[in-house]
Amino acid sequence: MTDAQKTGDRQEPAAGTAAAGRPSRRSVLGWGGAGLALGAAAAGGTAAALRTGGDASPAAAAGDAVPFHGAHQAGISTPVQDRLHFAAFDVTTSDRAALVEVLKEWTAAAARMTAGHEIGEGAVPGNDELPPDDTGEALGLKPSRLTLTFGIGPGLFEKDGKDRFGLKDRRPKALIDLPVFPGDNLDAARSGGDLCVQACADDPQVAVHAIRNLARIGMGKVAIRWSQLGFGKTSSTTPDAQTPRNMMGFKDGTRNIAGTDTERLERHVWVGEKDGPDWMTGGSYLVARRIRMHIETWDRTSLAEQEDIFGRDKAEGAPVGKEREHDEPLLKAMKPDSHVRLAHPDSNNGATILRRGYSFTDGTDKLGRLDAGLFFIAYQKDVRDGFVPLQMNLARHDTLNEYIQHVGSAVFAVPPGVRDEDDWWGRALFA
Amino acid sequence: MTDAQKTGDRQEPAAGTAAAGRPSRRSVLGWGGAGLALGAAAAGGTAAALRTGGDASPAAAAGDAVPFHGAHQAGISTPVQDRLHFAAFDVTTSDRAALVEVLKEWTAAAARMTAGHEIGEGAVPGNDELPPDDTGEALGLKPSRLTLTFGIGPGLFEKDGKDRFGLKDRRPKALIDLPVFPGDNLDAARSGGDLCVQACADDPQVAVHAIRNLARIGMGKVAIRWSQLGFGKTSSTTPDAQTPRNMMGFKDGTRNIAGTDTERLERHVWVGEKDGPDWMTGGSYLVARRIRMHIETWDRTSLAEQEDIFGRDKAEGAPVGKEREHDEPLLKAMKPDSHVRLAHPDSNNGATILRRGYSFTDGTDKLGRLDAGLFFIAYQKDVRDGFVPLQMNLARHDTLNEYIQHVGSAVFAVPPGVRDEDDWWGRALFA
Ligand code: HEM
Ligand code: HEM
Repeated sequence: MTDAQKTGDRQEPAAGTAAAGRPSRRSVLGWGGAGLALGAAAAGGTAAALRTGGDASPAAAAGDAVPFHGAHQAGISTPVQDRLHFAAFDVTTSDRAALVEVLKEWTAAAARMTAGHEIGEGAVPGNDELPPDDTGEALGLKPSRLTLTFGIGPGLFEKDGKDRFGLKDRRPKALIDLPVFPGDNLDAARSGGDLCVQACADDPQVAVHAIRNLARIGMGKVAIRWSQLGFGKTSSTTPDAQTPRNMMGFKDGTRNIAGTDTERLERHVWVGEKDGPDWMTGGSYLVARRIRMHIETWDRTSLAEQEDIFGRDKAEGAPVGKEREHDEPLLKAMKPDSHVRLAHPDSNNGATILRRGYSFTDGTDKLGRLDAGLFFIAYQKDVRDGFVPLQMNLARHDTLNEYIQHVGSAVFAVPPGVRDEDDWWGRALFA
Repeated sequence: MTDAQKTGDRQEPAAGTAAAGRPSRRSVLGWGGAGLALGAAAAGGTAAALRTGGDASPAAAAGDAVPFHGAHQAGISTPVQDRLHFAAFDVTTSDRAALVEVLKEWTAAAARMTAGHEIGEGAVPGNDELPPDDTGEALGLKPSRLTLTFGIGPGLFEKDGKDRFGLKDRRPKALIDLPVFPGDNLDAARSGGDLCVQACADDPQVAVHAIRNLARIGMGKVAIRWSQLGFGKTSSTTPDAQTPRNMMGFKDGTRNIAGTDTERLERHVWVGEKDGPDWMTGGSYLVARRIRMHIETWDRTSLAEQEDIFGRDKAEGAPVGKEREHDEPLLKAMKPDSHVRLAHPDSNNGATILRRGYSFTDGTDKLGRLDAGLFFIAYQKDVRDGFVPLQMNLARHDTLNEYIQHVGSAVFAVPPGVRDEDDWWGRALFA
């Protein structure tokens, strides 16, 4: 816990009392200095947390927060939220202690924000001659199921042949530098990163607020390398809910691993004790790919061709020859170069990933084409048994490749969950 | 109404019957050809419309659609939705009839999409050898209060001294080319446009879908010049609702014109019969400004300074010396160069605009700073009495200018509402 948290947790009195009728800072002399610090009792992972501020809404809070502490980080097997802000950071300091300090402060801030609190002393601290600790634009918004998922890229262990933080020996074997895949057209400015934070929330303002405040905490020590906003989920970890559609108009995520399917999660997603290294037990590996879609070309393609490409029908999402979306796919009935057939575990020695991607659009390119597509995110126990063989198969054979191009790429080791208030992101690694 | 609409309106049987248990296209031979055309009865501006498709949800529909037809276009005084996709188009054809055809098709598509329908024959047309009319990614989503607001830029009347479409004499006097304001740093690639469509919806996927499908309809005749996604509203036309906060953490839109305030709307927003030209009666003028915020500098500014800059407090939003957000501001109590004092009608001979802006973030710039800020949108009866004097005052004196920069700019004439199914965007202009 940071000092700011210990001393300055601003928790408003119950909404509807002081909140609504509270005098403004300027109208009562000396009010600003008094503050409303009620101690840090409500800090941390409490799920029924009120966001502080002048317009806290009582109905908003309960049940809307995803617990931050636990064996695994939230944001992987937990239900997929509607929006994404993903940020990759370069570590700019060479001072190991300074980096550790950032990670500790990040963890404390993440615990607070995911519970629906402002960070530090909030947007209206006691001393108004200081900048507020929290930038304030999420004041009055619900926690919105915000999750913050933290990852560590290869560059933290070794960069340009240098062992920057004495961590080289601790690099997991599973955290490989991804191979170059056929068709890759990667933009270095949208690839890589020493650290990442995946912010997911039902309200994009809450996700953007979180990344911005983490960047601010890290100022001078870490810097955002690239970031990506996702406006619509393309996967689901809750199979009973309506499957979302991607920008090609198809239901996406049908055969994803369910968040409740402990058996498949243990087998394909969570790093086990035997897998090593120790500091990754309970963690996972994240691959992010910015996949641009050639929307205009796709839109000129016949329905029959579109359905052949995926091996599923467009309206219902049913596999070829079947009636319903969740019917078992019959791979032989699909064209050999169809996406679903090629991506299916049976075509890849069982390789299985958990997908958690989002649709993006970043305006238009110089030719007036939508810069839109899929920000693909996959979690797996080992990228060498998950994304790599799958993508190698797809990159070589998938007819879909005529309509897409991979333009950004990154891989991160995602440590296990933060256990309690003394634990922090990466502690076991730096220990 | 387009031919596609007349002949091919795909309206599914009531959800829960055929929708759920429907055979997939591939499982029943010949199904594809049969289609499910039930005629165009439900097309057009019906507010209680079911989005068609395999997963239409009955609860979703009613009340969630904003009527398309009326005296004024929706998306101005109607309640502000959560998300924005704004697109400016260049007209690339020089053929007046072709342009008119696009506008007719756009209008028909807009009427359908805002009612929650797919366009044309939908994403799963009868003939699967053709590309679907609708791209399909909004299938199964609610109408989400989608509004599509259409505007016409100066370039349609005259470009490079040329009267491209014989419209030069019809250009409204109020549609001026905006003057250069002190501090402007405009990017031509994010400015201007012959036409615009403002898509607002509570679900960004619905807004993105709408713009994409309009762009597709216009292919070869109009092309997107630039587009902007807004992730959070910064204004409200419903004063009883919680006022949203902008990226600086302040409540924004407090003293905006309410959508129900007919008196102020008539006085400041809607073009009256006497104002001219005739084809603009019931319309308005839209100014869009992409305003980048220097987020990192702002975040280092003390709370006292931040509050002085606006002349309102951060937590509650109350004007200096007052207790509540909606208390009448006392301008003399504010610093002379504070934003609210400078922007207030009393400091501008009564100049008043309706604000309808959105927060944006488009990743990071080359220096690792968030490319974020306010996509400012203002509506007014005449930009010469609205945005121009206001912005001239702000650009000269506002302390806020140390923290912001205007990087994009556009102005459009927004014609009155589409009256009925025979009317179309711009008809009175081209008549
Ligand atoms: C823009 C690119 C992509 C699009 C539009 C896309 C779309 C889809 C769709 C519509 C499905 C069928 C529904 C479902 O089960 O989710 C699917 C399945 C799948 N995709 Fe993709 N996908 C893309 C890229 C990738 C990539 C890069 C990978 C991994 C390297 C991947 C792996 C999978 C897997 C594993 C399945 C499930 C196969 C099964 O078990 O039936 N996809 N994808
Ligand atoms: C990034 C840029 C801007 C920010 C952050 C901003 C923020 C704010 C805030 C927080 C308020 C007080 C609450 C309210 O009544 O809405 C306000 C008021 C206002 N702003 Fe801005 N604003 C910006 C740019 C502009 C521009 C460019 C204009 C017009 C040229 C403008 C016109 C107004 C007006 C008319 C008011 C209401 C004044 C009153 O009647 O009290 N603002 N703005």
